[in-house]
Amino acid sequence: MSASLPRDIETFLLKETPQSWVDAAQVNESVLLVDHANCERKAASSALAMIYRFVDYRDVCMSLSRIVREEMRHFEQVLSMIDRRGHTFGPLGPSRYARNLHKCAQATEGENRIAELLVAAIIEARSCERFRLLVDVLDPEVARLYERLCEAEERHFGLYLRLAHTIGEENSIQMQLETLLREDARLVTDEDDQFRFHSGPPAMAKHSNVSSD
Amino acid sequence: MSASLPRDIETFLLKETPQSWVDAAQVNESVLLVDHANCERKAASSALAMIYRFVDYRDVCMSLSRIVREEMRHFEQVLSMIDRRGHTFGPLGPSRYARNLHKCAQATEGENRIAELLVAAIIEARSCERFRLLVDVLDPEVARLYERLCEAEERHFGLYLRLAHTIGEENSIQMQLETLLREDARLVTDEDDQFRFHSGPPAMAKHSNVSSD
Repeated sequence: MSASLPRDIETFLLKETPQSWVDAAQVNESVLLVDHANCERKAASSALAMIYRFVDYRDVCMSLSRIVREEMRHFEQVLSMIDRRGHTFGPLGPSRYARNLHKCAQATEGENRIAELLVAAIIEARSCERFRLLVDVLDPEVARLYERLCEAEERHFGLYLRLAHTIGEENSIQMQLETLLREDARLVTDEDDQFRFHSGPPAMAKHSNVSSD
Repeated sequence: MSASLPRDIETFLLKETPQSWVDAAQVNESVLLVDHANCERKAASSALAMIYRFVDYRDVCMSLSRIVREEMRHFEQVLSMIDRRGHTFGPLGPSRYARNLHKCAQATEGENRIAELLVAAIIEARSCERFRLLVDVLDPEVARLYERLCEAEERHFGLYLRLAHTIGEENSIQMQLETLLREDARLVTDEDDQFRFHSGPPAMAKHSNVSSD
């Protein structure tokens, strides 16, 4: 992994993002940014939905609310970057990544809402890792934004983990986390027909002309 | 209506909030604030969900994103007020108001997503009207917050209306608006078994001991 990836995230994730995904990102800036904007919106949406589930934990609600605001600000920053880079924001199908992680969370034993906090932590950690990798290969204008976002994702990662540990039971958290981290590792290393911010490496046959459907 | 209610909102709404609702609010500060916090969260949630539906209108997405952030900040402000006033934030069933307005929106002829913008405009207008009425009767600490929020709701009301007029077809908007405003008038004047921020006047039998289930 890149030397500048925060140490806590380097030791947290089980597998690195394959180089072939980074190569695909470099030649798919438009899809990368549009999907990334959607990811920020979805991150806000997940945090907002979690407030409904932690309504009995006032401090958790307050933290989640601040995360919603920050994710929406990132959404706006990515929309502005899409404009500046001459791309167009619009509809784009989601990747398999978050859907599969949430499915996996529902199947784990233990408290479901704790699993959702862990999924959020993993998504933030993986996003941080990918931003870090992209900073070195993208246009400097995009790279500067991604460097800032990397710091925010690391902070959110730590916050989601702390919230899980504050509320959940330690043994159960460890078991859920192991299962979810294995699923994250599988999703980012198994070949993927579609290029997205959280996709796996492009399927070999389509390596040089990865789908953006 | 109160002399200080913004003129645009005074002429927009078909009916005033009945005095018996204001009286009930005065003796139900805890339910009022907890339900109000939920309303802010739901307003953010609705604006966020609308981004999915207006993904082809980049400027609308940007405006909605800013509204999400502002509603979440209000949510945090109301949570803090709940603490300061010695109440406890927690689960509370929703009122009939928004559910019925959304149901009515789905039943109107015309573009569904425009009806959702109009529902949002009506909820903001009605909230502004109620904040204005409450400023005169609540504890000064809560009243000061509500005075500020009143201004924000008026701004959001105007924004949602403008977005609807920018995207929708004029005749269709007028027809949808008339139907939705009649439903709002019905919901805030028909007796209600439950006291909430957007409830109707308390049912006569329970006038002095309104339910907060």
